[in-house]
Amino acid sequence: MIYITRKEQFCAAHRMYRKDWSDEENLRVFGKCSNPNWHGHNYVLHVTVKGEISEETGFFINLSRLKEIIKDKIIDKVDHKNLNLEVTFMSGRIATTENLALAIWNELKPVIENEGALLHCVKIGETENNSIEYYG
Amino acid sequence: MIYITRKEQFCAAHRMYRKDWSDEENLRVFGKCSNPNWHGHNYVLHVTVKGEISEETGFFINLSRLKEIIKDKIIDKVDHKNLNLEVTFMSGRIATTENLALAIWNELKPVIENEGALLHCVKIGETENNSIEYYG
Amino acid sequence: MIYITRKEQFCAAHRMYRKDWSDEENLRVFGKCSNPNWHGHNYVLHVTVKGEISEETGFFINLSRLKEIIKDKIIDKVDHKNLNLEVTFMSGRIATTENLALAIWNELKPVIENEGALLHCVKIGETENNSIEYYG
Amino acid sequence: MIYITRKEQFCAAHRMYRKDWSDEENLRVFGKCSNPNWHGHNYVLHVTVKGEISEETGFFINLSRLKEIIKDKIIDKVDHKNLNLEVTFMSGRIATTENLALAIWNELKPVIENEGALLHCVKIGETENNSIEYYG
Amino acid sequence: MIYITRKEQFCAAHRMYRKDWSDEENLRVFGKCSNPNWHGHNYVLHVTVKGEISEETGFFINLSRLKEIIKDKIIDKVDHKNLNLEVTFMSGRIATTENLALAIWNELKPVIENEGALLHCVKIGETENNSIEYYG
Amino acid sequence: MIYITRKEQFCAAHRMYRKDWSDEENLRVFGKCSNPNWHGHNYVLHVTVKGEISEETGFFINLSRLKEIIKDKIIDKVDHKNLNLEVTFMSGRIATTENLALAIWNELKPVIENEGALLHCVKIGETENNSIEYYG
Repeated sequence: MIYITRKEQFCAAHRMYRKDWSDEENLRVFGKCSNPNWHGHNYVLHVTVKGEISEETGFFINLSRLKEIIKDKIIDKVDHKNLNLEVTFMSGRIATTENLALAIWNELKPVIENEGALLHCVKIGETENNSIEYYG
Repeated sequence: MIYITRKEQFCAAHRMYRKDWSDEENLRVFGKCSNPNWHGHNYVLHVTVKGEISEETGFFINLSRLKEIIKDKIIDKVDHKNLNLEVTFMSGRIATTENLALAIWNELKPVIENEGALLHCVKIGETENNSIEYYG
Repeated sequence: MIYITRKEQFCAAHRMYRKDWSDEENLRVFGKCSNPNWHGHNYVLHVTVKGEISEETGFFINLSRLKEIIKDKIIDKVDHKNLNLEVTFMSGRIATTENLALAIWNELKPVIENEGALLHCVKIGETENNSIEYYG
Repeated sequence: MIYITRKEQFCAAHRMYRKDWSDEENLRVFGKCSNPNWHGHNYVLHVTVKGEISEETGFFINLSRLKEIIKDKIIDKVDHKNLNLEVTFMSGRIATTENLALAIWNELKPVIENEGALLHCVKIGETENNSIEYYG
Repeated sequence: MIYITRKEQFCAAHRMYRKDWSDEENLRVFGKCSNPNWHGHNYVLHVTVKGEISEETGFFINLSRLKEIIKDKIIDKVDHKNLNLEVTFMSGRIATTENLALAIWNELKPVIENEGALLHCVKIGETENNSIEYYG
Repeated sequence: MIYITRKEQFCAAHRMYRKDWSDEENLRVFGKCSNPNWHGHNYVLHVTVKGEISEETGFFINLSRLKEIIKDKIIDKVDHKNLNLEVTFMSGRIATTENLALAIWNELKPVIENEGALLHCVKIGETENNSIEYYG
């Protein structure tokens, strides 16, 4: 088994809050991340897939194809967007980075498997100091 | 003359647009940065000040004081905020990083000079690939 | 299971040596790291904890709480300190980064579990080129 | 078990292609990476080894020894070289980063084990955005 | 005056040598960089342009236009190429990073000025540890 | 004129204080950096020199020679050392990064000029967030 990781970046606005809670309750649990006027990040996305090296090509998934998948399925849908209002696969979920990692995993898994590879990890850096990893 | 640079970071939402332009006109000039639902960044701020080393202390401005100034005058006012809606010193300006650098320069200059030092440069990284510098 | 990693930094002095060895013996085994006049590093600490996402909040441990724990239990005790002379949880251990990772693991494990999460990894970068990981 | 990772860098030229394919076929599969006039990278190599901390020294493998091994067995053979033409342990393999990770694993494994440690991972960053990991 | 810097990257092969020198002479002056089988780098290009902020837009050059210029005039011509054999604007020059910075300056200057801005600096990082700057 | 920058790193211990002040006075002015038991950093040194490109070689100073100078004159004297106790060119100066930049400038200037080049800037990063520049 060999692992390949592709790093991409996107800029988005978000707000962590529950509609059924008061602003005070949201502030208590989510802190300044619940600001009703939004804030945003340069999110850094690492997608790791795994497979067995083909003797014919020396790789198991074409990097161009992997980039294309991540662009079509994720980046084009989240870049310069509002994660709470505009991203279909996040609808109904609180816009935490934890939930975002899960949702991106669900979007990518079938498409990666369709290419004959396995999705291994979705990692999202929200700031230089905080990151989330999900392995399914 | 010696130069000291302090790096800080903040997360904010913004939108590049003019109220007196249609959405189409804003899109034509500002591209996806004009998204009406906002987007955001992890902005990286570098503040460079200059002065002459004091023989008594071996520095010309106390780094703790410099951090305090940047925190009080800038970071506390922009971090986890909406640059268009919530930042007083940006009011009336289009929320470009260029204008943000200018506005931060104006906020910091008198306070730095009050400490007996000179403001040399305000640099803001909007993404890993784009940055703005202003030298007054 | 989802993983969250918090990165913190601290500056400290240390010396790798055994009191029961001569300076020559220490030099032979620990090289320039055994300098009797100390040297130091900007240590980069990554703490990874894991848990199951709560449907109520969209996370499993509050990042503010995680930061507070790392600050109280580790950073405040090692930052701008001498790892050999001033850090209680390193007393009796050779001040290698390997031992530091183990000691930090032991300090953090019960406190993280007390929050209903699991400690997954303590990683310490000593320089840009060397790092240590411990998984318990 | 504790893990130590050493990061090294090397600059090399390479070309991804099969001699038994036409230039068109190579271009179709390997894209611009099949350029017959070569291109190159600053490769970043991370070697992770694992073992049990010795009570005597506080480490399980001397970092100087680990650096020496990586330099002698790998860096001296690939730095400022052409991976297709000049690297013996890559001969007969398509010069993908996937194959390079495998080949480096094979070179390092016996030497690391000879030191009483275990090779855990060979990771190679080809660009800032693409990396390969191999765990044997 | 305000300064904007755009960072781009490209991968290329090169060799530092003079045709009119023997291999020994080239080796003596250029060291391992004169390897006849080529080597390569991930070059990091920073282009800094300057101008006066327009009140109408809040910037002085559209970042999309700046990216387009750098892509068309430089990146498309050097990425995954051999700097000695395939880059017209380097023909007749020794393929040092110093000469590359000069040549890129000459390519970009008229096009940037055509946009009503001024080229301020071309900076090229050859490795993490070496970089070249040219200010005209 | 063209500029070349070489980046090097070194690890050292230091303490900011004046012998003629009490511990309380040192603490008041220098904060936790005055810890009598020392602390330390991974210092990042950037040395920028400038000159005119030679037509014969395509550079103005051989990078190998520049590395050698920085190693001999600076790195070998400060790496894994105590800046207060063991570095001759810092003796009699308070061990601030400001004074270190000045002292390194004085050490390098004549040697660089002896090579037919000019020293342009000495920059020292003390942590990821603080750096000092000196231009003579």
